[in-house]
Amino acid sequence: MDSIVVTVRTGSQPSVTDLTREAAAFAKDKGDGLLHVFVPHATAGIAIIETGAGSDDDLLTALDDVLPAQEGKWVHRHGSRGHGRDHVMPAFVAPYATLPVLNGQILLGTWQSICLVDPNGDNPTRQVRFSFLAG
Amino acid sequence: MDSIVVTVRTGSQPSVTDLTREAAAFAKDKGDGLLHVFVPHATAGIAIIETGAGSDDDLLTALDDVLPAQEGKWVHRHGSRGHGRDHVMPAFVAPYATLPVLNGQILLGTWQSICLVDPNGDNPTRQVRFSFLAG
Amino acid sequence: MDSIVVTVRTGSQPSVTDLTREAAAFAKDKGDGLLHVFVPHATAGIAIIETGAGSDDDLLTALDDVLPAQEGKWVHRHGSRGHGRDHVMPAFVAPYATLPVLNGQILLGTWQSICLVDPNGDNPTRQVRFSFLAG
Repeated sequence: MDSIVVTVRTGSQPSVTDLTREAAAFAKDKGDGLLHVFVPHATAGIAIIETGAGSDDDLLTALDDVLPAQEGKWVHRHGSRGHGRDHVMPAFVAPYATLPVLNGQILLGTWQSICLVDPNGDNPTRQVRFSFLAG
Repeated sequence: MDSIVVTVRTGSQPSVTDLTREAAAFAKDKGDGLLHVFVPHATAGIAIIETGAGSDDDLLTALDDVLPAQEGKWVHRHGSRGHGRDHVMPAFVAPYATLPVLNGQILLGTWQSICLVDPNGDNPTRQVRFSFLAG
Repeated sequence: MDSIVVTVRTGSQPSVTDLTREAAAFAKDKGDGLLHVFVPHATAGIAIIETGAGSDDDLLTALDDVLPAQEGKWVHRHGSRGHGRDHVMPAFVAPYATLPVLNGQILLGTWQSICLVDPNGDNPTRQVRFSFLAG
């Protein structure tokens, strides 16, 4: 299994970072198989959504609604405000994704991008692991 | 990797469409491995739930609660009412699923079905890709 | 594909059960590839979160907020109180997860655990299937 780790700058604010270009570069000489994307962090996830038309910001809005950052709500409370809910997020936005690859091309739809979702501003960089399982 | 695309009629209303039969037909001569189900659309997802006892409708209700279709809430707003939230949905109900297959049989539990979740009535048909990674 | 089923005691209350040790034992002599974790039940899911610092309880709290157990809300209503929403949960917390393995080691981050999420107290034991696809 080919597997690499890339470092992604996510900054000090909640963010959605498009990883499609990095994933495509990894897959492009790999033939047919499954691309696995994984983030080895407990306060981040991978989402397959459209970017560049507002949905990346909409996802952060939705996360604030679904899992409010409010103090006192969460048992887990070390770290900055919102850290408790950041730790629940990966149950809903999982830290992995799998995508089909044929001839080295990830078969995403026109409007789909592979995104790193990081609500946690305390970690300005994140690691992402791409793995390829030939099939 | 064996991989096919099927076209699924989802109609002009939000819908949950059971794909288990199509998936089983695809897997049945494939031996042991992993079934990958993927929908190459930015406003659809794959869910493994029970169908036929109300949970398919309950899922649409839950989506309306968790990601309300209301105007003005979402930045992404071209298309019909609700289009903005439809684009956030795949972060929560991912556009892929993976399932174990032994002897050509998908090892779903008794009450599990593979479902296409499509809150977006603007697209009456959808494509679904089944891929099989032998193991 | 190597594949085994383990029985997990989840008790009669909503629960989050850490399966990391069982998964690691399964993967440890397997070389490189993808670990697939699957729960063949329609009211359970797999989450990759931190355990032991409160986030397991926080996840149950979040599920009660996002998918309230209240009577009358859900069409699906046989079984105990909350059974209707338990059947919606796997659309959000999927019943599978995939994780990269190198040299028999699951490449989880420091604070990540593989967890069985079972909001349904009616089933005191659950089955979990681990499969390994060599790559």
